[in-house]
This record gives sequence, C-alpha cells and structure tokens, in this order.
Amino acid sequence: MPACLQIDAARLWSDLMTMGAIGATPAGGSYRPALSPADREARNLFRHWAQEAGLSVGADAIGTLYARMEGLDPQADPVLIGSHLDTQMPGGRFDGVLGVLAGLEVCRALTRAGITPRRPLEVVNWTNEEGARFQPGVMGSALFAGTLSLPEALERRDATGLRLAEAMAENAPPGPLPFARPVHSYLELHIEQGPELERTGTQIGLVDRSSCMCSGYVTIRGENGHTQTAPMSRRRNALVAAARLVLEIERIGAAQEPEGMVSASVLDVWPNNRVNIPHRAEMSYAVVHMRPEGRAAITAQIEEAVSRIARETGLEITLEHRHFREALTFDADLRARALTLAQARGYSVAELATLTAHDALSMQPLCPTALIFVPCRDGISHSEAEWCSPEDAARGAQLLADLALEQVL
Amino acid sequence: MPACLQIDAARLWSDLMTMGAIGATPAGGSYRPALSPADREARNLFRHWAQEAGLSVGADAIGTLYARMEGLDPQADPVLIGSHLDTQMPGGRFDGVLGVLAGLEVCRALTRAGITPRRPLEVVNWTNEEGARFQPGVMGSALFAGTLSLPEALERRDATGLRLAEAMAENAPPGPLPFARPVHSYLELHIEQGPELERTGTQIGLVDRSSCMCSGYVTIRGENGHTQTAPMSRRRNALVAAARLVLEIERIGAAQEPEGMVSASVLDVWPNNRVNIPHRAEMSYAVVHMRPEGRAAITAQIEEAVSRIARETGLEITLEHRHFREALTFDADLRARALTLAQARGYSVAELATLTAHDALSMQPLCPTALIFVPCRDGISHSEAEWCSPEDAARGAQLLADLALEQVL
Repeated sequence: MPACLQIDAARLWSDLMTMGAIGATPAGGSYRPALSPADREARNLFRHWAQEAGLSVGADAIGTLYARMEGLDPQADPVLIGSHLDTQMPGGRFDGVLGVLAGLEVCRALTRAGITPRRPLEVVNWTNEEGARFQPGVMGSALFAGTLSLPEALERRDATGLRLAEAMAENAPPGPLPFARPVHSYLELHIEQGPELERTGTQIGLVDRSSCMCSGYVTIRGENGHTQTAPMSRRRNALVAAARLVLEIERIGAAQEPEGMVSASVLDVWPNNRVNIPHRAEMSYAVVHMRPEGRAAITAQIEEAVSRIARETGLEITLEHRHFREALTFDADLRARALTLAQARGYSVAELATLTAHDALSMQPLCPTALIFVPCRDGISHSEAEWCSPEDAARGAQLLADLALEQVL
Repeated sequence: MPACLQIDAARLWSDLMTMGAIGATPAGGSYRPALSPADREARNLFRHWAQEAGLSVGADAIGTLYARMEGLDPQADPVLIGSHLDTQMPGGRFDGVLGVLAGLEVCRALTRAGITPRRPLEVVNWTNEEGARFQPGVMGSALFAGTLSLPEALERRDATGLRLAEAMAENAPPGPLPFARPVHSYLELHIEQGPELERTGTQIGLVDRSSCMCSGYVTIRGENGHTQTAPMSRRRNALVAAARLVLEIERIGAAQEPEGMVSASVLDVWPNNRVNIPHRAEMSYAVVHMRPEGRAAITAQIEEAVSRIARETGLEITLEHRHFREALTFDADLRARALTLAQARGYSVAELATLTAHDALSMQPLCPTALIFVPCRDGISHSEAEWCSPEDAARGAQLLADLALEQVL
C-alpha cells in the first residue's frame, strides 16, 4: 500500500484567512499589488510559515520565493508547487493564495507523515503573477521559463512612474537562485475563476488546455477644443469614438460566449479636463478564445468596428493586436495520475480548459505540469467577492498532496 | 481733441510669438499649465517686459502678478487690464496671452504718447485661469473677488498629488498685494473661442452677458471580475455604462446647439487593467446654456439618461450637478463707450455673449467690466491649432488702448 498523506483542512483555511488579512479591504478582499508594502508583509508571512515548517527560503533575481524541503537526493531535480500571493487592486483571498498556502500544507503533511521525499520539493511564490501594478503578468514564471528578459522586467514602471527594480529593493529584494533550473514537474492548485465546476456540481477540474489569447491596443486621435464654446457639430471628441468602440467590443464579446470573450477594460483620455474636448484616447483589452479561428473572428470584428467608427467620425484610430499566446496542452500523464488519485478520494472530477493565463502555462514547456482547479462561488474572481469554500479548498489541497507525493518519491 | 494712443501691432505680434515659444509644442501650441516650470518662465518674461516698460511688478497671495504704471494720483483706484498666461495642456498661443500682452502694449503706447495717466493702470496676469492642472479655474480672479478662499485654493492638488502651495513655492511665489483692493474698472481682451465673429465677418465683439453654467459629476459602480473568465452575460462593467452615457450626453448637447452645449470630457476607470472588469467609473462634464431653462433641460435629460442606463444595466449610478454659475450682464456704460470707440476706428462690431467663463466674470461684480472679443480661426481654442490673425490681435489691442485711455484719464 502506498504512503498516504492527509492535509490539515483547518490549518489551510486558517492560513488562507490570515493571509487575507494582509492588505484586507472592507468588502472582504485583499489589496496586495506585486512589490507593494502589503506584498512584502505577505512574503514575510510566507517565509515565517515556511521556516516554521522546516523549509529553507531563497529568492531569485525577480524576488520569486522558493521554500525548499530538502530531498534524500539533493541533486535530484525538484518538484515545484507554486502560485502567487500578489493580488489584483483589489483582488480576492483565494486567487493564487490557495496554491501557495496549499503547497506549504503539503510540506507539513509530509513531515507529519514522517516522509522525507526522495526529490526536493519547493513551494514557489511567483513574483507578480497578476500584472496589476507592473506589466506583464505571470512575470516571475516567464522569467524562470526564459520568455521574458530580466533587464526588461526590472525597467517596467507602475502608474506612478516607479521602476520595478526600486519597488523590489523596498519590498522584495532579489536573491541568488538562478532561473531555468531543471525541474522534475510543476503542480499548481487554483480557483477556477469561471462558473463551470459550480454549475455542473464538479469538485475538481483538471486543466487539459489553455486558450488562444491576445491583447488589443487602440489609439484614437481627435482634436482638442473648448467644451463650452466649440460648435457641437464640429467636435472631434476622441472619448465619443472610444465610447462607441467600448459598446461594439462588448457586443462582439457577448456573441462569442462561452468559448471566447472580450471586454474593453482600460481607457485613458487626454487631457481629461472638463473644459477640453478629448483629443486622444487609448483603450486596451484582452481577447481569449478556445480556438484560434475564434480569436481571429474577434480581432477581425473589432478591426471592422474600428474602421467603421473611424470612417463615421472622421477620427484617426489605430488598432494593434499583440501578445499572441497560443493554446497549450498540459501533460497528459500527470493529468491521468491526478484523475486516478481524485477518483480514489471519491471526488467528482472533470477535465476543462483555462481561459486565462497562469504560471503553469509558463512551466508546461519546461516540465510536466498539472493545473488543478476547484470551484469558486458564481465564478467570480479578481474581486473582493471572490470565494472558495473550506471544503473545496481542502479537496484541492488533498489532491495536490496526493499528486505531489507520487512525484517526490 | 482727445489724446490718442497708437498701439504697435508689430511689437504686440512679436511678443505673442515670443511668449508662445515658452512651452512650445511641435504642433504650434503652448503647454504652460498653471504653476509649472513653463508658467514660471512665462511669468519671468512678463516681469521682464513690464519692467522694461517702466512698470513695477508685485504679486498677491496666489501669485497673480500686477504690473503697475503709476498714476498722477497714486491714491486713485486703479484701472486693471488683465487675462492669463497659463494654458491648457496643451493649449494655444492666444487664449489669455493676448489680453495680458495687449495690456503691456497699452502701457507702452501711453509712454510713447507722453501720457502719464491720472489713475494707476495695472496689467494683471491672473494665476490659473485655465483650471487645467489645478481646479477650479479662474482661480486668481475668484480669490481677488472673494468667491474662493485662499486656504482652499492652496490645498488643491494636481493629478500627481502635488499641492498647489508647493507648486507655487517652486514657480510662482506669493507676494504681499491684497485681494479685493478697490478697482476703478476692469478691461479684458480675449479671443472669442467660438465661430460667430468669423462667420459674420465682424472684427470686434463686445460681450454683453455670460451663460448659465454648471458641472456634472457621475459615479458608476460596477463589479470587479476577471475579463478572461467571467461570463459576459454576468459582467457589471462600469466602463460599458459610462460609454452609453458618453453617447447620450453628446446627443443631448448636439440638440441644444447653438444656445447650449455639453460633451463628456473627463472619464476615469478603475482598476483600468486588461484582466479586470472595471468596477468603478467617474465622469464629469461642463454644461453651458444661454438660458437657465436651457441648462435645466440639459441637466434633466442627462438625469433621465442616467436613470435609464442604471435601470437597464443594473449598475448603481449617482449624478450630481454642482458649481452653478448664473448668467451675468456686463457694464452697459463701458460697453457703450467701447462701441463708440470701435466705430470711431472704423471697426465692424457686434454685441455677443460668452458661453465660457473668463476672469472678467469674476470682476464684473466688483467694478465696471468690459470684455472684448476678437475672432479666432474656425472658432478653435484650447487647441494647438488656435489662431488669431495679427490684424485681429492689433484691432483688439487698439480698442483696449482707446478704452483704457478714457478710464485712466
């Protein structure tokens, strides 16, 4: 009979609620943008719990933290369990946090079971998964995977103009651990962030593939003028053209549901003053679709809308779609093992896709990677209203422990 | 025969182009927000030209500059000629600048004519007329007139959070001159900022009244969520509701032209991130109408649109109209004198209204006030494309000189 781990559901839940208190918001969320003072305190708490569990904590050049449980064979490639403690502005108490804290609980469960793993096991808190304050997101894992360069990342600035390197110096100093170390396998537990598991009454989602993504960037050039004197009929108001495009994008997104979606969510207006007709507006949005043709349909429809609005308003509008990320398939063997283990625990389980990016997407090209979803209430995330029940959190952590045990032995 | 002044049109034009070089933009405008380093240099240039013309320059507690030509009777209430050197972001080379530099030219013309005025004559550069960086606008004249309090003004912050008092310390230190000194009369020359004079081929506009104004402030509360995972049909996107309202406001404004107008021109979105559904949007706009009933119709229609959009989207939208400014009538005697003097010069002249605010609106309650308009190309202002011909600038300055001469003798 194989060794068996038992996670401590009460401890996991206590840790989740404690971490949620760091940067807590009145409406029940957390406000811990990457490399903020609140993120620093979250890192301190992670380090404290990791050391309490007997792990040694190190950092890499972007401040990603690795809490290592040494293996019987220290030279063996480690198994990584990771996610992130940074949040949106504001965000919830589960997105990312669940995966990191469940990782610590897996280590404690190993210790309680008296098991020293053959392979080292590292719990990873990736720096800046959310991309809320500094872009791009999934930054720490992209650096680890070599798809983003360190100098480029360090020069990114937040909305106040602060360089990422300066924010790091204050709140997440770099360490000596190298990127792209050989890794045996990567495991990540995450809330679904969509409504499917809840809708179908399924306890565990095993992610088999990711979506096709890209980002759209729109610049609208109008003409400045006085809002209190310029004839209405002659106004070339960039905000008015932007408003039309926002509504078109929403309509296009709604028509693609559930396979794809898009909403305009970023809009900046210049000079943004009551007495000036806006002469410039910049918009952007994220496109996701499960199929490349679906993504192409969305981008083509938005391009058509842009042309039409430009023609009808006489304004100059440029549109560029960038940051194309192709769909990716997660390791089939690892997923098959997770399926078997979940069924052995009596969990209801389904395979499903992830529409959005996770650090696991960065890792799959490097090593066999498993991404496990648990339900979240009403599919809500990136929200103070985000919620995962203690039972769902525990089931996810238990499956993570069972799968990790197989990997480290 | 009365004394006669002759302004130097070439010098005035040269000064306008020189001042336009301070904060010059590639597209031919100026970028001199109030209390910026560029505003400081504009003030330095004003001070230099004033002293060169034999005037003494002082400041009040908000940094408004008064360049004084002493009168034979120094105790007599001074005549003030004023406008502003600050610009929109960016703005043009004439809005405000024409009135200040024409004032200096009037003083030089007096000196050239060997006339020492009986009353002191002061050329005023009001601090922060535009309200582009720090709000509210017409700040300097409102403080002078006692309709705004100094502590309140000093605590205003720009978009970066910088306090006005700090910006002043850097770029426009306060001086000892008191607000609300007795003033004999106030004269202001300004570009029309609308198309009427140009359309009717009229050289001089004498402003008889101002419009009814107010500002609208909208807050839309949506719900945060993930743009790549939340079902489209469940999104409560504050930006989408804002976009609908922008289009409604534009439609309402267009229906009121030419007596009234309104465009949404300020929009801020939170968290303004590609992976988050906007949970909050704030909009604002300026309403102007020549009649109170027209303004009431605009605000009522916008309120109706807000209710409808709130009902249809299920989002919470609040709307408040504030900063009501009632229509005001300019001094009839002074306007009659200006009419006579303009006709004596052979200028075509018409009475007209001002839709937007000017420092002259602050001054009319204190003393007889004249506001003189000259045409600007296509009615464009608050724009790098703003243009006033040398001939129009000269005619305006000449009439200003003729009117000032009558006032100071």
